[in-house]
Amino acid sequence: MSNYVLKGHICHTPDLNGPEIRENAYVVCENGICRGVFDEIPERFRGIEVTDCTNQLIIPGMMDLHTHASQFAFRGTGMDCELLDWLNRYAFPEESRFSDPAYAEKAYGLFAQTMRQGATTRVVLFGTVHTDASLLLMDCMEKSGLVSYVGKVNMDRNAPPELQEESAFRSAEETRRFIRESAARGYRKTKPIITPRFVISCTDELLKELGKIRKEHGLPVQSHLSENQEEIKTTAALTPEADFYGDAYDRAGLFGRDGKTVMAHCVYSGAEETERIRENGVWIAHCPASNMNIASGIAPIRRYLEQGLRVGLGTDMAGGNSESMFQAVVDAIQVSKMYWRYIDRDAAPLKFHEAFYMATKGGGAFFGKTGSFEEGYAFDALVLDDTCLPCAREMPVAERLEKAFYTRMDQQGIRMKFVDGERIL
Amino acid sequence: MSNYVLKGHICHTPDLNGPEIRENAYVVCENGICRGVFDEIPERFRGIEVTDCTNQLIIPGMMDLHTHASQFAFRGTGMDCELLDWLNRYAFPEESRFSDPAYAEKAYGLFAQTMRQGATTRVVLFGTVHTDASLLLMDCMEKSGLVSYVGKVNMDRNAPPELQEESAFRSAEETRRFIRESAARGYRKTKPIITPRFVISCTDELLKELGKIRKEHGLPVQSHLSENQEEIKTTAALTPEADFYGDAYDRAGLFGRDGKTVMAHCVYSGAEETERIRENGVWIAHCPASNMNIASGIAPIRRYLEQGLRVGLGTDMAGGNSESMFQAVVDAIQVSKMYWRYIDRDAAPLKFHEAFYMATKGGGAFFGKTGSFEEGYAFDALVLDDTCLPCAREMPVAERLEKAFYTRMDQQGIRMKFVDGERIL
Repeated sequence: MSNYVLKGHICHTPDLNGPEIRENAYVVCENGICRGVFDEIPERFRGIEVTDCTNQLIIPGMMDLHTHASQFAFRGTGMDCELLDWLNRYAFPEESRFSDPAYAEKAYGLFAQTMRQGATTRVVLFGTVHTDASLLLMDCMEKSGLVSYVGKVNMDRNAPPELQEESAFRSAEETRRFIRESAARGYRKTKPIITPRFVISCTDELLKELGKIRKEHGLPVQSHLSENQEEIKTTAALTPEADFYGDAYDRAGLFGRDGKTVMAHCVYSGAEETERIRENGVWIAHCPASNMNIASGIAPIRRYLEQGLRVGLGTDMAGGNSESMFQAVVDAIQVSKMYWRYIDRDAAPLKFHEAFYMATKGGGAFFGKTGSFEEGYAFDALVLDDTCLPCAREMPVAERLEKAFYTRMDQQGIRMKFVDGERIL
Repeated sequence: MSNYVLKGHICHTPDLNGPEIRENAYVVCENGICRGVFDEIPERFRGIEVTDCTNQLIIPGMMDLHTHASQFAFRGTGMDCELLDWLNRYAFPEESRFSDPAYAEKAYGLFAQTMRQGATTRVVLFGTVHTDASLLLMDCMEKSGLVSYVGKVNMDRNAPPELQEESAFRSAEETRRFIRESAARGYRKTKPIITPRFVISCTDELLKELGKIRKEHGLPVQSHLSENQEEIKTTAALTPEADFYGDAYDRAGLFGRDGKTVMAHCVYSGAEETERIRENGVWIAHCPASNMNIASGIAPIRRYLEQGLRVGLGTDMAGGNSESMFQAVVDAIQVSKMYWRYIDRDAAPLKFHEAFYMATKGGGAFFGKTGSFEEGYAFDALVLDDTCLPCAREMPVAERLEKAFYTRMDQQGIRMKFVDGERIL
């Protein structure tokens, strides 16, 4: 089925001003592309099969801008640790296991299966330093039906011995092999992304090499930025020439401008850094659960939106405890209220439709035109059946939509899931 | 089956110092009472049937110290409103519907069914001002198998006309009728609780009458306390004679001492109030989701624990968005980290086992001896099957326990549920 029409309550956010809710409406998909939302099916689409989802909610797929596929196994554990302890006791030992292809295949297989069953349709992923395991992750993601960017991680300093690459040269060589071999596999939905872990674990030399590779291959970039204050201090000491943390990436050609970049966190980005983010068109992956769990803080998202920055949401497992973007939407709203209450009374809490926007069209822009049911957008959609939520009375559709997120209906209520027009659930 | 043994990985928190995890152990239930946890079945219990839950997690039932049964229908909606707007647009219109017994029966039936299926085994409930609907709630809860305290709400001022009782006298009379009729129904698991909504909606005269009724009948009390700063100011203006908010309840005989009292929130309780809470043995129902959702703030739970106060958790629907006490445990830990980060660097974040304690034995104490598998405790238990969570490797039981909460395994992983020794799932 490449051309079809879905009928139901269609909810999306073409902009940040409010949700567009169209009850008993029709959304048309033609060759994987959305042809818009209509109250009646237009003449030119009359021959197309209609799937009846009456009284169900039809929303765009969720766009997860930041998560670590390699940390899936231990999500929701070790949450009593602080960052360094957590990395050493949980994250690094787990990532070390991916030197074993059999483990990687099993772990990434389970990860991909979970992603397939959930609400996310597109995702930007960290693998590990291991090239072969990261290629296995790409295989698994390609089979999942989701669209993904997958990064082989680079680390040539300040990493445990079993995860530290022997030199900037070797790390860059492996990145080239990763790009070459992934190209040879002819994936339709899975692409490589340049992935320096963060400045602390990458020498200047390595960052510069990655900048060259990015340019040669026209690839996007992902990394971490200004997540916590200790990390920022350490980064500053390691890069005395940089004006601020993000500038260290920018000097290496890894911070937007002529290529796409997404930076996770930006909890403590200062005025200069946010201005550079804006100028360079860098995406921010806001990861509220992770920022709470490892006690980093709360990113000033209202301020970023006011400045016109590009903001999407990330689940950031396993700093984040769940793969659920529905939970990320709720967390983003909740932390914004604490930010307003305790840190900046002029930074109004996020409204539901704003977080919904960030989870769909906002983050979706990183992948191109997707995350909305406007004409010309890639058709990623979820059909939610909220009859699994008992309710004593009829609720307005806008409230049913909000409730679907706050009650985590992604765990039991996804009736259909479409990616690039293809039905995968 | 009144006597039985469960075999599995038994996890509970006899105190705040850490979880007790006993792998492949046996927990014995005799006539609804726990006889302890054993590595081998003691001679005296040898004849009792053993239910094999090998490799599953056996934990105490969850104790929800505060939620509004009458607000269940609209949980997770209207979360963009601030408190007053939210009360007027969502809470009060919904509560008004309970003047209709047919609506009450339907709504409370769905609520009770959801509670039965979830992880909570004991709960303290707000109904509405309507006596008959509150009795229907008691009927539904009795059938659910859970143990509950149910409150007919009192409001004789500052309420919308359709919810405001005509006088303190009528409100007290209806409360007496509520107590009388509930006694006549001979419930085994369901008890009334005195429930002034909060000081703002109760005249001094009404509070004093309720204090008398409490004493006559030896009943417990529930209400709200120091939830947000506007509310505290309004309360102070209404009760010039009181030394602080909680003192207004205490002067009416509704604040612990010789009777049990639970107060929801205590986000902004000052030194005098917390000292009185301690002296009077009042329980605090910490409701982190609600405190985030309606932007009240973060209660200083670490400080309360240090002062030896009695603290349990509450879901507080529909300020809270979910009936899940698993989520309440996660929320409590997450907000404590934000409190530590932004408000008080000497208030260490809650550890998982501390939040688990509050959700079980801590709150359980309000009901008597329950929430633990120590000898002599009422037997409330959940058997969790985490094979529904795919994992690439074996995890230590302590991590599986933490992960069960952080991944909301109460939604799909409850294999058995026992209340007072009776299996209800």
